[in-house]
Amino acid sequence: MQSTMQDVELTVSRILAHGTTVHSRSEVITWTGEGEPERRTFAEVGRRAAQLAHALRDDLGVRDDDRVATLMWNNCAHVEAYFAIPSMGAVLHTLNLRLPAEQLAWIVNHAADKVIVVNGTLLPLLAPLLPQLPTVEHVVVAGPGDTSVLEGAGVQVHAYEALLAGKPETYDWPRLDERQAAAMCYTSGTTGDPKGVVYSHRSIYLHSMQVNMTQSMGLTDSDTSLVVVPQFHVNAWGIPHATFMTGVNMLMPDRFLQPAPLAEMIETVRPTHAAAVPTIWQGLLADLKAKPRDVSSLTQVTIGGAACPPALMKAFDEFGMRVVHAWGMTETSPLGTVARPPAHVEPGSDEEFAYRTTQGRFPAGVQARLTGPNGERLPWDGVSAGELEVRGPWIAGAYYNGPDGEPLRPDDKFSADGWLKTGDVGVIDADGFLTLTDRAKDVIKSGGEWISSVELENALMAHPQVAEAAVVAVPDDKWGERPLAAVVLAEGAGTGFEELRDFLGGEGGIAKWQLPERWTRIAAVPKTSVGKFDKKVIRKQYADGELDVTTL
Amino acid sequence: MQSTMQDVELTVSRILAHGTTVHSRSEVITWTGEGEPERRTFAEVGRRAAQLAHALRDDLGVRDDDRVATLMWNNCAHVEAYFAIPSMGAVLHTLNLRLPAEQLAWIVNHAADKVIVVNGTLLPLLAPLLPQLPTVEHVVVAGPGDTSVLEGAGVQVHAYEALLAGKPETYDWPRLDERQAAAMCYTSGTTGDPKGVVYSHRSIYLHSMQVNMTQSMGLTDSDTSLVVVPQFHVNAWGIPHATFMTGVNMLMPDRFLQPAPLAEMIETVRPTHAAAVPTIWQGLLADLKAKPRDVSSLTQVTIGGAACPPALMKAFDEFGMRVVHAWGMTETSPLGTVARPPAHVEPGSDEEFAYRTTQGRFPAGVQARLTGPNGERLPWDGVSAGELEVRGPWIAGAYYNGPDGEPLRPDDKFSADGWLKTGDVGVIDADGFLTLTDRAKDVIKSGGEWISSVELENALMAHPQVAEAAVVAVPDDKWGERPLAAVVLAEGAGTGFEELRDFLGGEGGIAKWQLPERWTRIAAVPKTSVGKFDKKVIRKQYADGELDVTTL
Repeated sequence: MQSTMQDVELTVSRILAHGTTVHSRSEVITWTGEGEPERRTFAEVGRRAAQLAHALRDDLGVRDDDRVATLMWNNCAHVEAYFAIPSMGAVLHTLNLRLPAEQLAWIVNHAADKVIVVNGTLLPLLAPLLPQLPTVEHVVVAGPGDTSVLEGAGVQVHAYEALLAGKPETYDWPRLDERQAAAMCYTSGTTGDPKGVVYSHRSIYLHSMQVNMTQSMGLTDSDTSLVVVPQFHVNAWGIPHATFMTGVNMLMPDRFLQPAPLAEMIETVRPTHAAAVPTIWQGLLADLKAKPRDVSSLTQVTIGGAACPPALMKAFDEFGMRVVHAWGMTETSPLGTVARPPAHVEPGSDEEFAYRTTQGRFPAGVQARLTGPNGERLPWDGVSAGELEVRGPWIAGAYYNGPDGEPLRPDDKFSADGWLKTGDVGVIDADGFLTLTDRAKDVIKSGGEWISSVELENALMAHPQVAEAAVVAVPDDKWGERPLAAVVLAEGAGTGFEELRDFLGGEGGIAKWQLPERWTRIAAVPKTSVGKFDKKVIRKQYADGELDVTTL
Repeated sequence: MQSTMQDVELTVSRILAHGTTVHSRSEVITWTGEGEPERRTFAEVGRRAAQLAHALRDDLGVRDDDRVATLMWNNCAHVEAYFAIPSMGAVLHTLNLRLPAEQLAWIVNHAADKVIVVNGTLLPLLAPLLPQLPTVEHVVVAGPGDTSVLEGAGVQVHAYEALLAGKPETYDWPRLDERQAAAMCYTSGTTGDPKGVVYSHRSIYLHSMQVNMTQSMGLTDSDTSLVVVPQFHVNAWGIPHATFMTGVNMLMPDRFLQPAPLAEMIETVRPTHAAAVPTIWQGLLADLKAKPRDVSSLTQVTIGGAACPPALMKAFDEFGMRVVHAWGMTETSPLGTVARPPAHVEPGSDEEFAYRTTQGRFPAGVQARLTGPNGERLPWDGVSAGELEVRGPWIAGAYYNGPDGEPLRPDDKFSADGWLKTGDVGVIDADGFLTLTDRAKDVIKSGGEWISSVELENALMAHPQVAEAAVVAVPDDKWGERPLAAVVLAEGAGTGFEELRDFLGGEGGIAKWQLPERWTRIAAVPKTSVGKFDKKVIRKQYADGELDVTTL
């Protein structure tokens, strides 16, 4: 039996039309580093998005599902691109300006981008790449910059404002299938080629509704959100789309991401909310302590991208900013969980704080399950650790174009029944709160049970004489895998491995069967370019016999 | 270009699965009129919904899109039916127990209901109808009641609890097309046969997300919602579905809708939110004034179904309950607008209060346009009055089964391009706030302009000597239509029509061209069964020459 409901597609152009009419006075405020910030109302953004779409279609020949890339900071022009490109039926491809040049080139070529919209200040990054980007026909330069570096690159160069000038301020947005591609973003995995996640109009629309639900960000048109999380990083966590649904103002920091300008824009523009990864905030809080400013407007900070250390969370509390932890990934659009404590805990209690440090609770749009070492489903008991798998309308079920041009569904990323394997290991409690304990590739699979490398590392690093410690899985004839502890002792420390093992089993609270037998001293833990422990280096050193290992 | 997102259907069973796991401790609390209210956790509701589905399938033979009707108060068993019936793939049909018997029978026959779940206390209403209901094979009686009245009715009678007893507490809910019918509800229009609106799984899911958005109800699992609006009335405004998405507790009043038990349940269970039509609350506030109680928990009251008089809104404010006005209809699921004042008005100001008395602002899921007397689109300027038309994924585009078995799309209800014509006339301001001024059938179409009958009536009734007044359109050779004012003077008043006309044009603020030429005195304004002005009676009396009309 069919329903009698209207068949209305969930599209980005609907969000745009709503924001520019019902919330026409809300603003996108871009920090310019000098003088007054640039302010544009949602109505103006809508007119400029229409102009951009006309320019892309009429002047640059963008058609159908052509990819239009952006290499931009967070600013108003970038928001205009966010709405114009998908609404006209093309595909927005946000480029991560932090990536190594060869990876960036690989990604542009894989997506076959036809146009790149770039901030003038980023031209020195783009220009040397252009000769390697055969699909790119047009470069549109937004904001001031030295375009002479593009000479001879074999592309047509356009100034953003000149393109828009005189174009009609409305656009007859086409009706689109809601499952059509709207935007894409590549993951920068530590291994293998980057993988493209392609968001649909439907996934963006539904994700925007979720972001606006009370238990997610819960903002209204009285709020201003400081969007520090880059627009090239999972659509800035969906905030630009979500704000156009509800009229939340946005404060965009452009390239001014250092503590001093961030503090200044908070004091000046008075945002009520901010969204960022933890590292940005550590610097900001230090700056605020050194040079106090009025940041009282900012009462809620959404933190994701990496776990926020409890000490940092408490430091925020001191400034009257409440941290709300969230977890997600490029493949989850990204909203996967939000850590709003459940109703049954007392506000301000230790129990409440413990809930705040979890990754958070799943919303209705995200189904979750844990898969154990032997492929079994594990209960939500807060104890059983398994790999987290998720399912939902804004969660990836494949990657863009494998070598054969078909969607890519590697077995280690997607289950046979289509769920995303997150690569994260954790526990879920009976109320649906997720706590991540390790990465699946780092967990030690010992005799059909899992041992968390992170838990062992944290316990080891709690010892006063341990500066750093990494724990990796190494092959074991009897158990399959066992932990190897690689320890960096503090300057001048002479602690022995037996003492450390006893400490782990005692104060450390580690179960006896999880205690490492294999120990080694290293000078420093190898790190990746973004500062994370690079455990595959240690695994390789062990395999190559380069480590001096003691077996207890 | 296809997206790489998972294709996950938006279904009622997903909402159920979420509520019963992530929000397993949240509760449905049903008032019983004596002793402790009945409390069931969402987890229990889920187990009982599974049992009900097993019983409907295995014992009663419910298959495919069979219609299962409910004739019930707001209570936990009704919530169980809300989830079990659509989740198993059948169609929930809520019956309005306030309807005249012959209309109820017409509706059951039109929907071809196979099963009716009925509260025992409502058996005296159902029993006399059964002989006229040939499609009904089973009656399931929930709660105590005298089932002897069903003897000889030719249906199989089942006790709800006995049916559930021993059934499995889980059910393998089928995968469903999200556009499939989930629930249906008939409108009780004042003219013509009732019309069936069929909600899809998709429409219910999206509507539930919208209800949970911060600018709609904005509740969390710390809240308890007193659901006074009947479950047979547009799915209780979507609250039972929405609460299972976010863990909001529900307090269900069952049949105890009188002021005294309502006041008692508020004091005892301490809900934070309530949803009801204005009339219910007038009695409650009077009761609270006469017999003060602690109702301090209740801080937000959603009012819809009819405009809340400003005086009543202020009376609420005195009790610390903030009224949030909302507008919708059976055809809009019902959320159409919510009156949360925009950011630019000062809290507590007269301007803010004025926004609170509008019907409210459209959410992103509801597109709106105004159509003028000559079919033209009108601007959102807060002045131009036209018929409101709406479009969106939870808005009806047809009614269930016309005489030929095809969806029914009467021209006066749906535009050629598929928008719902609401039959309401109003204005929309530049910020998307709707103010309704009249019903389309009551507005006076005079020379290509519209005159609001309600505005004239309100202006007339502001005269101290006017007890009541109704204004209707009557045919006019020159202007097409002109207003006829039918006035009930206050006891002993002797005011003349000229004086009233001058009052309208003076203090009344009515434009000269809108002033009525035709006037008549009547003893009382005819009313419908629910107490609304029945203007078609006056129009007929005028047409039949039964009124003594003075022309000024």
